[in-house]
Amino acid sequence: MSWEWQAPPKVWIRDVSPRDGLQAEKVIVSTEDKVSLVDQLTHAGVPRIEVTSFVSPKWLPQMADAEQVMAKIARRADVVYSVLVPNPVGAERALATHPDEMTVFVSASETHNQKNVHRTIDESLKGFAEISAMARSHGVVLSAVIVTAFGCPYEGTVPLSQVLGLAERLRDMGIHELALGDTVGVANPRQVAHVVQAFREKLPDISLALHFHDTRGTALSNLLAAVGSGASRFETALGGIGGSPFSPGAGGNLSTEDTVYCLDEMGIETGIDLDQLLQTARFLVEKLGHDVPAKVFHAGGKMIPVNASKS
Amino acid sequence: MSWEWQAPPKVWIRDVSPRDGLQAEKVIVSTEDKVSLVDQLTHAGVPRIEVTSFVSPKWLPQMADAEQVMAKIARRADVVYSVLVPNPVGAERALATHPDEMTVFVSASETHNQKNVHRTIDESLKGFAEISAMARSHGVVLSAVIVTAFGCPYEGTVPLSQVLGLAERLRDMGIHELALGDTVGVANPRQVAHVVQAFREKLPDISLALHFHDTRGTALSNLLAAVGSGASRFETALGGIGGSPFSPGAGGNLSTEDTVYCLDEMGIETGIDLDQLLQTARFLVEKLGHDVPAKVFHAGGKMIPVNASKS
Repeated sequence: MSWEWQAPPKVWIRDVSPRDGLQAEKVIVSTEDKVSLVDQLTHAGVPRIEVTSFVSPKWLPQMADAEQVMAKIARRADVVYSVLVPNPVGAERALATHPDEMTVFVSASETHNQKNVHRTIDESLKGFAEISAMARSHGVVLSAVIVTAFGCPYEGTVPLSQVLGLAERLRDMGIHELALGDTVGVANPRQVAHVVQAFREKLPDISLALHFHDTRGTALSNLLAAVGSGASRFETALGGIGGSPFSPGAGGNLSTEDTVYCLDEMGIETGIDLDQLLQTARFLVEKLGHDVPAKVFHAGGKMIPVNASKS
Repeated sequence: MSWEWQAPPKVWIRDVSPRDGLQAEKVIVSTEDKVSLVDQLTHAGVPRIEVTSFVSPKWLPQMADAEQVMAKIARRADVVYSVLVPNPVGAERALATHPDEMTVFVSASETHNQKNVHRTIDESLKGFAEISAMARSHGVVLSAVIVTAFGCPYEGTVPLSQVLGLAERLRDMGIHELALGDTVGVANPRQVAHVVQAFREKLPDISLALHFHDTRGTALSNLLAAVGSGASRFETALGGIGGSPFSPGAGGNLSTEDTVYCLDEMGIETGIDLDQLLQTARFLVEKLGHDVPAKVFHAGGKMIPVNASKS
């Protein structure tokens, strides 16, 4: 393993806290506060934001106001506002709100897909074909997330060939924007570097994003291993919320502020203002009414040296 | 920046929780429990353990039983038991307990050294010369820690030339074992890689260790950047304790269990048994009476797949 510095790249971060984060919360955040969260992320310079999810309110009451949130956010032309859709019904609701991007999701492992959405992987892909046609007719980008891409809570190890095969099928359906999710937080940096390199070699026409959970403290290291292997798109969540961060055995998302802080310090551009981001995190914590795992949130940002002459 | 996998190296971890960890705790752990902690770390295969500190009990009542702890631990011949000494008086006390190694410390920044030990860097080094002679006459290895090596809370940025210059002076006094401490947790992986490479080029006769704090979530990434640059000696603390982990603005040590888990997954050998280590962490948490920041402690270790056929 070697670590060498070449040209500092630019990376693109999608903050998923309004969707992936808030849907894991017990408290239901008001529509007004969700809109404010998205608007503050926009203001902080976050280039991509996952705004909401068009799932049935029966399953996920936290996202019942998806239409209202999409209608009320103040969009900036250079920011990509995406929404998650589970099926063609959700896609139809989503398209009426004019998102820049719609995202579908499927598991890399058969067991997880069946537990998660009660469908086989093949059945999921059939639904995507329909959604893909709908997206195309509306001129909306369709992207996909492959969850459990680095390990499955039921099947354990997920062979890379299985992930690559699934990615190839998605690409052949016209889905070129792909995120790999480390849903349970079992990826390690060596594996991540290997997976990113394999995608660059075998599926260079896929625009690859990575989504890490910090269950075992490896999330930022995984992101840096991916950057070092040429990846430049990542999904993170403000505060590190999502995935029941305080339950044993499940970990939150990699936090946006920890990511931006570290990349800033390394001279890797994100376009995001850390101070604005921390202000937004304080707003989020106030609305959630509980602490969040993000380290930089607690540290308050960069170190500000104490003026020694004063003491 | 690039991340390439070569031969998986072996790394040596020194667990500093019995000293660096416990001295930051409000609760005073009993001598019996300290001895048990050290013995359990030995049993888990930790190759180096910082057992205690011979500072004045007036300053640090947590370490008042240094002699008793050193007398009661069950030593294994292949484990290095080290102790921290602040001055020649402490060194004399320490040498009577037959440690394998004594460690002195000095700040890379003048202001921090004066705030920390009320001496100039020059005055600290004068004391080390005396301690060095004492260590030599007893056949005990003397090592040094340069704290604030990656940034100082008073002076801010610490020039690398200043750290290298101080390391050279220590080496010229016969101190070849050196640890660089990121005392306030401001190091970033790019900087760490640069520092490790500079030491390898300019001071190849120094055996370099790294000691990171996780104030801003970068500690494990910093360790991996150091491994990728050829470093193989690290100081970590069980549970991630030390440095007031739950106070804003201060962060605990990089946790031993998070480090061992990640290195294990990457195929990098530590010689440490993760399950034994987690058992020891549970003992530590019970004795401290509060939670610890280590992620792998909460996750309970490696992922164990649920047997899907049962459900």
